[in-house]
Amino acid sequence: MTAISGKVSTDSASGGIRLGGKVLHPLWLRERVTEAHALDSISHQRLYQTAELDPDLMVENVLISENRKQLSLQFSDGYQAELNLAEIAIELGLAQNPESIPLPKSWQSSLEFKRFSWNDLDDPNEMKALLTAYFENAFCIMDGTPTDQDSLKQHARRFGFLRATNFGELFNVETKPAATDLAYTDAALASHTDNPYRWPVPSIQYLHCIANGVEGGLSTLVDGMAVANTIAEENQDWADILESTPVRFRYDGPTGIYEDTAPLIARDYRGYVNHIRFSPRLDFVPALDPETLTIFYAARRRMHELANDLAFQIQFPFKPGTLLMMNNYRLFHGRTAFNGKQGYRHLQGCYIDHDGPQCLYRMLAIGNTDTHVRRET
Amino acid sequence: MTAISGKVSTDSASGGIRLGGKVLHPLWLRERVTEAHALDSISHQRLYQTAELDPDLMVENVLISENRKQLSLQFSDGYQAELNLAEIAIELGLAQNPESIPLPKSWQSSLEFKRFSWNDLDDPNEMKALLTAYFENAFCIMDGTPTDQDSLKQHARRFGFLRATNFGELFNVETKPAATDLAYTDAALASHTDNPYRWPVPSIQYLHCIANGVEGGLSTLVDGMAVANTIAEENQDWADILESTPVRFRYDGPTGIYEDTAPLIARDYRGYVNHIRFSPRLDFVPALDPETLTIFYAARRRMHELANDLAFQIQFPFKPGTLLMMNNYRLFHGRTAFNGKQGYRHLQGCYIDHDGPQCLYRMLAIGNTDTHVRRET
Repeated sequence: MTAISGKVSTDSASGGIRLGGKVLHPLWLRERVTEAHALDSISHQRLYQTAELDPDLMVENVLISENRKQLSLQFSDGYQAELNLAEIAIELGLAQNPESIPLPKSWQSSLEFKRFSWNDLDDPNEMKALLTAYFENAFCIMDGTPTDQDSLKQHARRFGFLRATNFGELFNVETKPAATDLAYTDAALASHTDNPYRWPVPSIQYLHCIANGVEGGLSTLVDGMAVANTIAEENQDWADILESTPVRFRYDGPTGIYEDTAPLIARDYRGYVNHIRFSPRLDFVPALDPETLTIFYAARRRMHELANDLAFQIQFPFKPGTLLMMNNYRLFHGRTAFNGKQGYRHLQGCYIDHDGPQCLYRMLAIGNTDTHVRRET
Repeated sequence: MTAISGKVSTDSASGGIRLGGKVLHPLWLRERVTEAHALDSISHQRLYQTAELDPDLMVENVLISENRKQLSLQFSDGYQAELNLAEIAIELGLAQNPESIPLPKSWQSSLEFKRFSWNDLDDPNEMKALLTAYFENAFCIMDGTPTDQDSLKQHARRFGFLRATNFGELFNVETKPAATDLAYTDAALASHTDNPYRWPVPSIQYLHCIANGVEGGLSTLVDGMAVANTIAEENQDWADILESTPVRFRYDGPTGIYEDTAPLIARDYRGYVNHIRFSPRLDFVPALDPETLTIFYAARRRMHELANDLAFQIQFPFKPGTLLMMNNYRLFHGRTAFNGKQGYRHLQGCYIDHDGPQCLYRMLAIGNTDTHVRRET
């Protein structure tokens, strides 16, 4: 059965059809045909050029099958097609799409979250639960991963494709003399996002604990969606200026200069916060008029306050084997200070892109049981 | 000498200063101090939190040095700073920034372009000329590269960091039975952009010719900026709908399902076209009302026509050793048909991100002579 009830009829004004309270354009319908000669059987890519379809195409006749599973269409150019009504219902928002990536859920310090065990993730249901938590909260924590040096590469490749930077495929977070980034000291790190100066910004960060002989150095996370939405509730002018002012981010290290320019908060086409860039040690706002800048600085100050407000923050220690996966486009992260002389602390980090975990989730959602994102062979 | 002429004075209304026809905000000035205790000497990151500066900060006194190289500022919280006037002039747009990435230049089929020789690229001036051509035209062609299998990895790493996908670090463009993408057949490929279904979309594509025993199979390139701007001149409604309608792109292959949703044309904060997504074999526009969709389909049809119009297109053959580097966010690419039975044709491809070549250009622009993007060690 399908979620689309009621009758179907042709619509003379548009040349399309009336179905489920909507009028559907004839070309919209035609681009969804799935006959074997229309789609490549392996890639499911169209074998015809949509631009070559008759611009004045019309649906001349339409029927719903008795079991309400098929829509039969007769087009004005002679083409006849059967469309799957369940798929049409999903596209019209009338039925749930099992493949849909879980929607983000805003959180504050009261968030209760499950820590996952690496050994359980061979179970497709457990992997799907982990990915669901990741998409909702923008992070997840795994315990019990192997702690061999550089094993993070294998752990992260399970979810996607490594994103190398000038720091390499992996970076080591340990105290170093002559550090090229404040991360490589034992100082506290206020809430920030990583690498806003890259184009594109690395999507997902992993931090993998190999050794930790110090107290302190707790990892801190804050939900940028919660912060952005709180700012919008408090002062729409602040939200507007943070979402519209192009800010230049600049990394100027010994081996390279990286720059990109973008607003501190961006939203996707649905209105969800989908890119926070926040790195107050390397941001440069343009020389706008002073009235505008006074609003901008107040808004950015509020963003900094909320991003470092304990009411918004969760903190947790890294034990050897702990693996954190976090969305660098949504979360602020930081750490509390520690004393590097107290012992050895060694984390390894790397980045992957958003599309890997999304692909893995979709494959599990349609019944695949492989808990590793797959490569073409 | 500096490009900023005239006097400097404090501005009581803003608490800032008047300089070069502008009023500069006191916090804007304060965030640009470069004293040794304010910036990390290696990373040039700020050692203080900008959010902790006095929100009511004022400049109490300002002077320009006699040689007009320094701006001396006395702030209301007691801080005293010397700013470099040449750097301020660049930020105010009053002086050219040597590091600025060359601006894109729209082109059509009449474009005359230089082919670069791989062996010449150890000369920093030649490498800078190549990168300038790349940023202006969104592509460049190199001849004489080593043609060893997989040597493309080394060639591309000279410019940036490899962007792996489910096809691997490298992909092979050769005719295959049971191809998972139409690219792996001998069919003509109409103008398209690659991988609009990924998040983020791979930035720069390399195609490296290892063997070519066929006629035909010419590579085709079209400037998406020229196409987008032509559409905007012809019909602003078309441009608006292509820049605002979120379209779902979907790859549904044997090993993974990838989806992302975005408009076909996006512009950056300056108004330059900075992301074309065009892949008419796998795009799905939402079921908008028929009137809107009629405009959308007309606009997309025009985009397809222009993207395949010989007046906009350049074509060139691949010889063994030819290496094409192209911006997948700006150019359409395609190829003419060939007969796979005529001989063996083998290209290898890979992706890198935008920030690698930008970094290399900036380093050359400030006098560095290394013609390889550098890694932290």
